[in-house]
This record gives sequence, C-alpha cells and structure tokens, in this order.
Amino acid sequence: MTDLKICVIGLGNVGLDLAINFSKKFHTIGYDINKSLIEKIKNQKSKHLKISKNGVGLEVSCNHKLIVNCNVYIITVPSPVNKKKLPDLDNIIELTKLISKFIRIGNILIYESTFYPGLTEEIFIPIIERESKLKLNKDFYVGYSPERINIGKNKRLSNEIVKITSGSNKKASKIIDSLYKRIIKAGTYNVESIRIAEAVKILENCQRDLNIAFMNEITKFFNKLNLDTKKVIEAASTKWNFFQFYPGLVGGDCIAVDPYYLIFSAKKIKHDLPLVRLARETNEGMVDYIYKHITKAISNLKISALAFFGISYKENCKQINNSMYLRIIQKLEKNYKVDIYDHFVEKAQPESNFVRTMECANKKYDVIIIGSKHDEYKKMNFKKFLNKFGTIIDIHGISMYPKNKIL
Amino acid sequence: MTDLKICVIGLGNVGLDLAINFSKKFHTIGYDINKSLIEKIKNQKSKHLKISKNGVGLEVSCNHKLIVNCNVYIITVPSPVNKKKLPDLDNIIELTKLISKFIRIGNILIYESTFYPGLTEEIFIPIIERESKLKLNKDFYVGYSPERINIGKNKRLSNEIVKITSGSNKKASKIIDSLYKRIIKAGTYNVESIRIAEAVKILENCQRDLNIAFMNEITKFFNKLNLDTKKVIEAASTKWNFFQFYPGLVGGDCIAVDPYYLIFSAKKIKHDLPLVRLARETNEGMVDYIYKHITKAISNLKISALAFFGISYKENCKQINNSMYLRIIQKLEKNYKVDIYDHFVEKAQPESNFVRTMECANKKYDVIIIGSKHDEYKKMNFKKFLNKFGTIIDIHGISMYPKNKIL
Repeated sequence: MTDLKICVIGLGNVGLDLAINFSKKFHTIGYDINKSLIEKIKNQKSKHLKISKNGVGLEVSCNHKLIVNCNVYIITVPSPVNKKKLPDLDNIIELTKLISKFIRIGNILIYESTFYPGLTEEIFIPIIERESKLKLNKDFYVGYSPERINIGKNKRLSNEIVKITSGSNKKASKIIDSLYKRIIKAGTYNVESIRIAEAVKILENCQRDLNIAFMNEITKFFNKLNLDTKKVIEAASTKWNFFQFYPGLVGGDCIAVDPYYLIFSAKKIKHDLPLVRLARETNEGMVDYIYKHITKAISNLKISALAFFGISYKENCKQINNSMYLRIIQKLEKNYKVDIYDHFVEKAQPESNFVRTMECANKKYDVIIIGSKHDEYKKMNFKKFLNKFGTIIDIHGISMYPKNKIL
Repeated sequence: MTDLKICVIGLGNVGLDLAINFSKKFHTIGYDINKSLIEKIKNQKSKHLKISKNGVGLEVSCNHKLIVNCNVYIITVPSPVNKKKLPDLDNIIELTKLISKFIRIGNILIYESTFYPGLTEEIFIPIIERESKLKLNKDFYVGYSPERINIGKNKRLSNEIVKITSGSNKKASKIIDSLYKRIIKAGTYNVESIRIAEAVKILENCQRDLNIAFMNEITKFFNKLNLDTKKVIEAASTKWNFFQFYPGLVGGDCIAVDPYYLIFSAKKIKHDLPLVRLARETNEGMVDYIYKHITKAISNLKISALAFFGISYKENCKQINNSMYLRIIQKLEKNYKVDIYDHFVEKAQPESNFVRTMECANKKYDVIIIGSKHDEYKKMNFKKFLNKFGTIIDIHGISMYPKNKIL
C-alpha cells in the first residue's frame, strides 16, 4: 500500500492538513487551482515539501498535469450555498469532471466535503461514470469520509479526531478505512454506506446549529427578564448531562451552511424539517437583533468615529468567511464610517486589506464595538481608543467593559 | 446547625431521597398528604426511621401537626401542567399556605419544584407574607434549589449531583448553601438570585426536550430515506463534541412539562419562544406518528389479541406518569383489546392494576408491540407469546425482532 500515490484536491484548512498527514506515509500530491495559495504553501510549509528516497512526501501544485497517475483522489473543497441558500456544487462538479479525465482502473475517489445523505450517489457517481466511461465498483471506487476539523484556539488536528469512513462497496470501504487508519491517530469508524457517512456529518452540524439557536432564543427572552444568560449557562453546566453552548453568531463554511443542504434534500421529497429551518432562521436573525441593540445604544450619541474590533466568525482565528460581524458592519456603514480592527485577520493579508492594523489604532473613537471573542480582548484596554464620553458595546460581554453587552 | 429541624414536604422520588439524606445529619420530618404512601415508606424504609440520641434521624407522617417547630421547610412536590398545558400550581400554593401557618421568625422555606424564572418571587413570597403576616428577609427567608435527580437504570442519587442553591438575600443564600453542602457529596453551586436558580433548571430540561425533538424530526426524515438513524447517531457519537440523544417518547413530570412553564412565562410578557414550542409540538406529535406506523403495519391482519409490552415513560423504571405509551394504547383501544405488560410497573401496585403480571402471559397474541426500552426486552423471547402468523412491532428496535421498528 506504500506504493499508493494520493492526490488531495483543495488545499484549504482541511486539505492541506490532510495532505501533510498523508505525505508522511505516501507519495502525496496537493492540488489547488489557487496559484497564490500554492506559492504561500511553498513558502510557509516548505519543510513538509520533501520527497524521500522511497518516494514518500508532499508535492503541491496548481498544475493539473501533476495529478495524473494517482491511485486515490480526495476532494476536500467546501460545499457552499448560493445566495438563495441552495447547495452550490459547481466547484465540486468541475473538480469531479477534471478527475474523471485522469481516473484509471482501480482508482478511488473520496469526498470529504459536507453533503446531504444520497448526494454522492445521486450526483457525483453518475458524473464520473459518464465522463470517464468507467463503471463504479468494477473499474473504480468511490468513498466518503467527512472532515471534522475544528479551527481556532481549541483546534484539533485532523489526526486527533476519529474519522468516519465509507465506500461504494465492501472492498472499497475496507481499503479506504485502512488508508485513513494509517494517518489518523484517533482511529477510524467505518460505516456501512456512503449515505450513512454523509448523514453523520450533517447531523453533527445541524445539532450544533440548533443548540446555538436555542441559546440565542433563550438569551433574547432572558434579556427581556434582565437575567444574565451566561450565569445561567455556567450554573447549568454543573449538571453532568447539560451541554454547554453559548448564544452567538454562527458563521463560517460549516454550521451556517450544512443545515441548508439537509433542508434542500428534505424539500426534494416534499418533507419539512421545521426545527432545522427554525434554527437557521434564529441564528441568521441574530444579525438584526444585535444591530438593533447597537443602534439603540448609540442613537443619542454624536458619532464621528466608530471602531469595530473582531470580525472573524470564530474567536481566535483569522477566518472571515460568512462572518456575521461583517453583516452587522455592512448595516452600520449605511449610517457610520466604521474602522475595522482584527489582529488575526490583519495577518491574513491580502484578502483582508479593509482591516486596519493595530499599529494605526492611534485615533480615538466615539463608539467601540467588540465582536469576535478573541482571548486578547478580555484584557485589552479599549478605553485608550475611546473619546472621553465614548461608549463601548461589547456584543458578548467578554471584555472588562461588559456594561453594554448584548448576548 | 445540628440543632436544625428540617421538614421535607412531598415524599415522592425527590422528597424521600432528600429527607433520608438530611436525616443523616439533622432531625428531619418527612411529610406527605398521601396516607398509603406514608404507610409504604414506613414498611419499606423502616431502617431509616430511627431517631438517634442526639435527635438526628427521620420521622415520616401525613399529619401536619408534626411539621410545627421546624426551622427549614423544603417543598419537593411536582409542578405539573393542566390539560391546557398551563402551570397548575394549586398543590404548591396549598402547601405554601399550610407552611405559612407554621412559619416562625428565622425560618427558611425552600422550593425544589421546577419553576419559571421569577415564579417564587411573583407568586409564593406574596402568599407567605400575606398568610403568615411576616416579612421576607426580616422575619423569614426563602430559597430555591432545583432537584436534578435522574431515575431509571442510570439513576444518580441526589447527593451525587451538584446542587444549585439560592436564597432571598445573601444571608439566606449562604445558610441554604451550607445546609445542602452537608448532605451533597458532589458539592453545591451557589447562584446570586432565586431567579437564576429557577432559570437553570428550566434551561436544562428545555435543552433535553429540544435535542430529543431534533432526533425525532431527523428520524422521521431518515425513515423516509430508508436510513437507520441509530447507526448515524452511533457514528456521530465518535465526535468529541456531539451529544448523543436518541429519538423517543418524552413523558414524565419534568422534560415533558417544564418547557410549558417557560412558554407560559414568555407569553405573559408577549414574548415567543418558537424553538421551545416547536420542540414540544414535535415530541407530543410522536404519539400520532408511532400510532400511524403501528396501524399501517397491522391494518391487513386479523387481530383477536394484541399485547403491549413496556409502558413506563422511561426505560428500566416503574413510573408511568405522563407516559406517551399509554396515549398510544388509548388510541389502539378504540379498535383493539390491548393486554398490557410491564414487569416494572407490575410491581408498583396498586396504582397500576390494569397491568398484567408476566405470570399470566400464557396466552398467544396476533400482535405484540414493544414500548419502553427495558433492558430485559433486549433478550426476551417474545415469539413464545406470538401466534404463528403474528407480528412484532418494536417501536425502538431494541429487541431481537427489529424488523418492524419505528424509531
């Protein structure tokens, strides 16, 4: 099995980590169409980019010619939704077509993107068969193994998380499982069908979305009662079977997106998932809720300068994809000029050149809004950026200035 | 503090356990209006009913004359809802009035029943002040410390669970906390107000209700897709932050009731809690869902005898209060004669004399339905009660006959 050549397609958080792990055991190709990302990886991860004498190691490229002659292709690109919140599979379909050109007898194609149950079999397998003129389970095999990584401060590396594996038949399932077993320290959990593996990932993320939505719903009510939800949650957490979720803004590529895949798949068979839908509506609605509370708090102030600190969708990380803080800022910008600061995002240039660096935070603001719950904000002296009669609004109440907290 | 005389009012699951625990440290009176319950306790728990030389020990009685001269009164009776799903506080109001007659300077009255945030202060404190002519925090004190016990096989004794404590002022809160600290091995968690303590308990139970409702919603969908939800849940449970809930019928006095208290309290201020409401609707709706699947499975059969095994609302326990299995049986009884078996409930005579003892299970049935997930059912040979062409419907698919499972 060491002779295998593995190709990981999509070198974002998920793919790059996976490719590095595989490259310790196999000859691994990391492919991404994003040229500047490939350059960045070549600079930042150069120590990983070595091929040993026995052929084991990692090569990264944006040239698809490099991906020929691989045995296993793994697609790790995100599965987003479009503006109508419907699955947008264009990217994965394109990549599937690309791989179909190269796929040969005995090859395996594995998806790690989040799908609804049945998607791989309904959409991707027919594409591969049509484009490659090969036959599933006779000429080639398909697998599904959802990524489960966690970014931010409590980051878990991919090989520290049990990996769900599945395949298009028993033989494929077994091979795929043993493949991941080689690199995942935490072990694997092989399920009997691709559909079950697809269902597992989406269930996990819908559960999280729902539980955060519940805390948002409760917070809105407790705020009216003048009850501090956080104190309630902390006390409830002393019960062994209580699950500690906090109210918050759900962004990113997973929890804020995956439920729409499940909703879409239910709609296809005219089935309704009211709780899953309502959880999404509740969490999406938090933008308006917070915006309303901000405007109420500052409506009587004379504001010439407003700063927003912390825009990444999750604390202690630089990701701003689908960040709800950006949506709040968008609304604020209709009436105010907003200066944006985030020391995590600041480093992730050039995508985020709208973010000011902390070094130029030498001006004073009438209003400071604290968004993402970055650890640094807990002890930061925000007052040094504040005008004498200025106001601090700390959305999550994490700083030393929780007077105007909202959640 | 050893001189304290503690009176526990209501000797159900919660109260009796609490009274026994307190009686190891203090002179404790257990009071219940149910005469036959007192007799039963006297027979079954006689070893606990001893007063030592230093006055420590337990007395139980249905005579309210015995509850005079106590220092601490603890109300542990359930807080149910009426047929309209509105809080039914009659019982607790009556008991509060009764205690108000006896309460003296320096006494403490503690509630353990589940309330919505604010209920103790809005309803019970005014009653005590009016009836006793005493003044809160001057003459007497009030506390709130929600019970958190767990019945059934995975039973946790009350002193193995961290106890939330609170009081009407700092002094009371401190005394109440140290009181429970004496008997709770797991320790206490003192919160700053009665309202927070009330919110904690109701939050815990609403969270459970919602998470079970989510699994019910998912199961109904996955059933349509021919996907085995249990296999999905088991696989998802390999993720560190997934919370293992299963689909099911939510009965009993807590999870199926408490959310209505929160909904009621929100309605009072014209606030809506759509997720909490929808969770209740989903879980209540499972009676019809299961009934529909049962009737579909047996509609073409000629049935002269039908048996239902397992009616307690939770597995491995005898409690049938608010059991959804009984509601399913009610529906079935419109068309069929149903023989009911439950070896847990069977022992809990005489309330349950409609339950047949296993010894008289010597007849054969055309249909056997398996309800509660009692451990014994997992290995039970149900076929010996079944006619040759009979059908077994195993609602949860826990037995050796999962062919007709529903959840």
